[in-house]
Amino acid sequence: MLRFLGEYYLFDCGEGTQRQMRLAGINFMRIDHIFITHLHADHFIGLGGLIQSMDFLERDRPLFIHGPKGIDDTVHTLLSAGTFVLDHFEVKVNEVSEGVFLEGKQFTVSCFPTVHTNSSIGFCFEEKPHRKFLKPKALALGIPEGPLFSKLQDGFSVEVKGRKFSPDDVLSTPITGRKVVYTGDTKAFEKLADIAKNADVLIHDSTFSHADIENTNEALHSTTKQAAEIAKKANVKQLFLTHISQRYTEPKLLEEEAREIFSESYVAEDFMKVKVEKHW
Amino acid sequence: MLRFLGEYYLFDCGEGTQRQMRLAGINFMRIDHIFITHLHADHFIGLGGLIQSMDFLERDRPLFIHGPKGIDDTVHTLLSAGTFVLDHFEVKVNEVSEGVFLEGKQFTVSCFPTVHTNSSIGFCFEEKPHRKFLKPKALALGIPEGPLFSKLQDGFSVEVKGRKFSPDDVLSTPITGRKVVYTGDTKAFEKLADIAKNADVLIHDSTFSHADIENTNEALHSTTKQAAEIAKKANVKQLFLTHISQRYTEPKLLEEEAREIFSESYVAEDFMKVKVEKHW
Repeated sequence: MLRFLGEYYLFDCGEGTQRQMRLAGINFMRIDHIFITHLHADHFIGLGGLIQSMDFLERDRPLFIHGPKGIDDTVHTLLSAGTFVLDHFEVKVNEVSEGVFLEGKQFTVSCFPTVHTNSSIGFCFEEKPHRKFLKPKALALGIPEGPLFSKLQDGFSVEVKGRKFSPDDVLSTPITGRKVVYTGDTKAFEKLADIAKNADVLIHDSTFSHADIENTNEALHSTTKQAAEIAKKANVKQLFLTHISQRYTEPKLLEEEAREIFSESYVAEDFMKVKVEKHW
Repeated sequence: MLRFLGEYYLFDCGEGTQRQMRLAGINFMRIDHIFITHLHADHFIGLGGLIQSMDFLERDRPLFIHGPKGIDDTVHTLLSAGTFVLDHFEVKVNEVSEGVFLEGKQFTVSCFPTVHTNSSIGFCFEEKPHRKFLKPKALALGIPEGPLFSKLQDGFSVEVKGRKFSPDDVLSTPITGRKVVYTGDTKAFEKLADIAKNADVLIHDSTFSHADIENTNEALHSTTKQAAEIAKKANVKQLFLTHISQRYTEPKLLEEEAREIFSESYVAEDFMKVKVEKHW
């Protein structure tokens, strides 16, 4: 789950997601957008219980579910099992395949095809570029501290003693926003290094140890080192390895494998929190 | 989950059941029979992930799911969400309403209507009566210890020095077997005291504190004290209160309420284990 400006964005929803959120102290009623990477149950089946709990708690605004071709049918089939009837809110399902499909004032969410199922996708959450307010410059120009600063910051021109100032006079050149990329399940593929270019966080399939690379090609999943190679090529800040196979009783060993290639590699753990600092 | 003679029997399967079983160190591949009380998702939605995991682990014998009218449709709808195809084994669904529907050499499972949904049921797992081998009596009759003992115990007559002995000569009168009753969700109803008569364990809906009895009648659930009254009337050995509403942050207080009526009352907890001693 990603938190941005007080809004919650959930990526994939396996069995027990609502319970884990309760344990983590997350109020899942605040989630408005859920992104599903593909139609294997370990990535969507938690939607059933989550949506029913939201209804039980009398949610009254729509919930948006974005996912690949087939997600609409999947969600409605899941909700139709048993005697459940959705009473209090609407579930709006949005089938997507590639490119930007969601845009807010300060962010975009895009998706890209991955190499796992016919329609599997990954997601890229990007903060839009922002401009820093150059306070010393503004003061030097004779603009008094106070409401005029906010106006300039919001993109409006102002007038001080007959002189006009535009935002460009007191704002920095645009600073690239934060970027988080999540692959879902995928066989490693070269193009991801472009998609994840300079990301702050890359969350990558790492089902297998590199020692088991032979299974990897069959299974359309990635190894530790494949994920690390892409992280390195993409010049990301941090790599989180996820979807570790249950066969590995000591996932930390997989972290070490990845670190041979890319030192900022971490095995994702339940309840792990990562803060991505704003760029200045 | 009930374990009897090395076999596992699962009662209801809410979200996250397979995960909780993994955490409890239970090998869910050994479950052959699952019993579902009614078609609300918190009682069946875990079947999706559980069945898919069994298939992933290449289970090769059928899995039987017993439940009320509608369970067949529910299971197949649940499994049809997403791209899953069951490859390795068969799921056999058995719709039941009342009476004994499953019988083994040493046990029966029966169901009874409850007061919750149109078709909701509870389950009664009963060990068949058994007879104790009266060793001192057998020795006094001159039967030598060894294979003849086993033969008599297995119900065959034997001959010792020209004298015939039948099992009746050395076996006690039948001893009632163990009995476990599980209501699922239900408004408290009088008839349950007969159904649960002398049970070793009664697991009863106890959604509400008795202080909130006004909500109870609407919701078709029971309170602590209602469950305890029935346990007392039925003369059960132990009562386990379950399905406690999330509003109660201190479930132990509900235990105290029930104990005012029936001292052997316990609030069920995750991973709780109860041993039911064989009757002698």
